[in-house]
Amino acid sequence: MKSKIVCIGDELLIGQTINTNAAWLGEILFEQGINVKESICISDTKEAIVDTLSNVGADIELVLITGGLGPTVDDITKQVLCDFFETELVRNEEVLKQIEAFFEQRNRGMLESNKRQADLPKSAIILENKIGTASGMWFEKKGVIYVAMPGVPSEMKKLVSEQVIPRLLERGVLPNQVYKTVLTQGIGESFLVEKIEAWQNQLLKEGFKLAYLPSIGQVRVRIGAEGKSKIELSNLIEQKVEELKKIIPEYIFGYDKQTMQEVVGNLLIQNNATIGTAESCTGGYLAHLITSTPGASKYYLGSIISYDNAIKSKLLGVDEAIIEEHGAVSEPVVIQMANALKAQMGVDYAISFSGVAGPDGGTDAKPVGMIWLAIATPEKTFTKLLQLGTNRKKNIAMASLTALNLLRLELIKALNL
Amino acid sequence: MKSKIVCIGDELLIGQTINTNAAWLGEILFEQGINVKESICISDTKEAIVDTLSNVGADIELVLITGGLGPTVDDITKQVLCDFFETELVRNEEVLKQIEAFFEQRNRGMLESNKRQADLPKSAIILENKIGTASGMWFEKKGVIYVAMPGVPSEMKKLVSEQVIPRLLERGVLPNQVYKTVLTQGIGESFLVEKIEAWQNQLLKEGFKLAYLPSIGQVRVRIGAEGKSKIELSNLIEQKVEELKKIIPEYIFGYDKQTMQEVVGNLLIQNNATIGTAESCTGGYLAHLITSTPGASKYYLGSIISYDNAIKSKLLGVDEAIIEEHGAVSEPVVIQMANALKAQMGVDYAISFSGVAGPDGGTDAKPVGMIWLAIATPEKTFTKLLQLGTNRKKNIAMASLTALNLLRLELIKALNL
Repeated sequence: MKSKIVCIGDELLIGQTINTNAAWLGEILFEQGINVKESICISDTKEAIVDTLSNVGADIELVLITGGLGPTVDDITKQVLCDFFETELVRNEEVLKQIEAFFEQRNRGMLESNKRQADLPKSAIILENKIGTASGMWFEKKGVIYVAMPGVPSEMKKLVSEQVIPRLLERGVLPNQVYKTVLTQGIGESFLVEKIEAWQNQLLKEGFKLAYLPSIGQVRVRIGAEGKSKIELSNLIEQKVEELKKIIPEYIFGYDKQTMQEVVGNLLIQNNATIGTAESCTGGYLAHLITSTPGASKYYLGSIISYDNAIKSKLLGVDEAIIEEHGAVSEPVVIQMANALKAQMGVDYAISFSGVAGPDGGTDAKPVGMIWLAIATPEKTFTKLLQLGTNRKKNIAMASLTALNLLRLELIKALNL
Repeated sequence: MKSKIVCIGDELLIGQTINTNAAWLGEILFEQGINVKESICISDTKEAIVDTLSNVGADIELVLITGGLGPTVDDITKQVLCDFFETELVRNEEVLKQIEAFFEQRNRGMLESNKRQADLPKSAIILENKIGTASGMWFEKKGVIYVAMPGVPSEMKKLVSEQVIPRLLERGVLPNQVYKTVLTQGIGESFLVEKIEAWQNQLLKEGFKLAYLPSIGQVRVRIGAEGKSKIELSNLIEQKVEELKKIIPEYIFGYDKQTMQEVVGNLLIQNNATIGTAESCTGGYLAHLITSTPGASKYYLGSIISYDNAIKSKLLGVDEAIIEEHGAVSEPVVIQMANALKAQMGVDYAISFSGVAGPDGGTDAKPVGMIWLAIATPEKTFTKLLQLGTNRKKNIAMASLTALNLLRLELIKALNL
C-alpha cells in the first residue's frame, strides 16, 4: 500500500511550527508496512488543497491529511473536502452532543464557531475525536482512502492509533514487514560501511532491506524484511543482528528507540553504581543528557562544572602547578578532575572533560576540537583524546556521547566480572 | 518570487528524522519575502527525484533541494541531477583539495567515496561547503533556479545564509520587505495579546503585518512592512517597536535572532561581572544554555549540580537540618544553594534551582512542576516559585529561561546605578 501525507497550514510552510506530525505519521505508517511515498506541506487555501488532492499520484491508495480543521474562519478545509468529494456539510447531532459535553466538562463557554465543528461531510465516515472538538473524516474515492484529521498532534495521534490503523488492519490490506534498528557509536558512516560490507552484501542478496541513518556521533543501521509471518521475519532479522554483533561488538550500544543515556542508565542500575561528572568545555551538556532520562536520580548524583580554570583548582582541587605545566586542556588535568570528582561526591564512576569546544579559542598546540576526556571507574582512571571539528555544538555532543559509550563498555565488563 | 522546498531522504519520510530543515528554510525564505508555496519530502530514488523536479509547478521560480548528497552508495541524487539538467559529473580539482584539507585537518583517513564527493555536475555553479564535504550546486533551467544542498542542517544553513540568499539579493529579485521580531519572556500569548491589543489594531490599520510566534517560555512578536525603501521601512518599524517598549518594557528581552543567554551574557560583560549556577532538577540545562554561547568563559565560571540531596550538603554546604525541616524543594534550600555557590566560586551573581521536574516524583505538597529558584546578586538574594505542568523538558526550559530573565532585569538595574 502506497501512501501520501498532506499537512495543511501556513505555520508549517514558513517555519513557525516544525512539522512533527509528518514524522510521527511517517513512522507509524512505515511500521505498518505502508510505503510513505511523499509527504507534503501546503497552504491553507482552497486552490492548494484541491490541487493537491486532485494530484495525489497514480499509485497512491491512502492519503492522510492533517490540519485546517480548527473552529476559526480561516480554516476552510472542511468545505473544500465537501466540494472535492461532491458532498455537503450536515450537522451531526451525535458529534454536537460530544462537543457540548467537551465544553461542559471543562467549564468553558461554547461559541457558535464551536457548534459548527459538528457540521460534517455527509458522505464521510466520522471518526470520533475523544480529546478535542474536530472530528476525523474518512472518505473513499476511486479506490483511494482519504482521512482528514485535526493538526493538533495529540488529537491526530489518538485518531490514527485507535481508529485509522485498526480500520486498515481490519481490511487486511497491510503487508507483513519487520524492521530492527541497530544503534552504533564511535565509528563514522563510511568506515562502518567498509567494515561491514561483506555482511551488507550478503544481507541484500538474501532480500533484506538496509539503510544507514547517521546523526551527530551515531550511525543507526536499519534492517528490514518482508514476508508471510511476522514471527519468522523477526527471527530472520535477529540472526542478521547476531552476525553484525560479532563483526562490530564494541560499536553497538542499543536498538530501535533506545538512547545512549538510557542504556548507560540501565547498566548503572544493574551494576548498582552511581556516577558524577566533572565538565569543563561541555558546559553541563553531559549532565543535561544524563538527566533528560526520567529517573536518572537513581544513579546520577551531580556535577562540578569548572568552566573557568581557577574553579578547577578551587572546587575540584586540581593541582595549579599541573595546569601551569600542561595547560588546562591536558591528560593530567582530566585525570585529576575525574579522580577528584569521584572522591568528593563518593560516586563509583566519574567522567571528566577539558577541551576547546570552539568555534574560537584554539592554538597551534591545542586546536579547536581538541578534547581530553577521562573516565574513573572503581579500579582505574583512563583517558581518550578527541580531535574534532570546529562546530561547537557538534563537538560538545560528540564528546559527551563518546564518553558515555566508553563508560558503557566498562559497565558491561564490570557486570561480567 | 514563489518557491518550493524539496527534502530528499527516506529517514524523513519514515519519521526517523524530524524535518527541521524545511522549517528553517521556510522561515528564512519568508523573511526574504519569498513565498513558500509547498514543501515536499520524497524518497531517495531516481524516479521520485525526477518526478518532483519535472513537476515543480507552473509558477515556481526557486527550488531548494536538501539531502541525498552523502558519500555512501545509496545517495544517488547527484547523478539524477546530472540526468535532469543534461550534464555530467566531472572531478572538480579545487573541491578535491578542499576535501583533502578537511580530512587532513581532522587527522582522518580519506576513502575513495570521500574523493567522489569532488565529482560534480559540469553545468552547475559550485557553492563551497566550508564545514563539510558535500558541495552545494546551483542550476538554472527554463527560468527556474534549483539549488541542491547537503541535508546536514549546519552545512545547509551556512550555504543558504552565506551563498544562496546573497546571490538572490544580488539579482534584485527579492521584494523590499522588512521584518523585526520582538522577543518577550514571562507572559503567555493570550495575556500578551490582551495587553497590546490597541497597539496591534493601530498597527494593522496602518498596513503593517503582525504575527505572534509562541515557543517554550517565550512569545515572539514579528512586525513586518513592505514598500519601496528598506531604510524607510526599518524606520517605520522602529517607531512601532518603541511604542511597544513603552507598553511592555519588563517583558521584552531582545530582538530577532538574539537568545536570552546571549543578552544576559552581554549584560554580564557590560557589568564586568561573573556568574555561577547551582542546579538540581534542571540537571545542567542552564549551564548548557549559558555555555552554548561562544565566549561564555568571559563571565561564566561554572556550576555545582547537586542532583542528589546529599550533594547539596556535601558540596554546597546546605544545612542538612534545613533540608530535613523544609524538604529539598523549598525556599530556604535554594537561598542557601545560591549563597553557597556564590561564596565558593567567588562570583558576583548566582542562580539556583530545586524542584520536581517530572513527569513523576511529585507529592500533594510538592507536585510535579513545582520549582523554586533563587538569584544571588552582589546586594541581595531573592527567590521565585514556579508552578509549571507535567512536561519534564518544558519545565526545565521554562525554569531556566525565567531565571535568566530575572537576572537580566537585575543586571539592567545594576548598569543604571
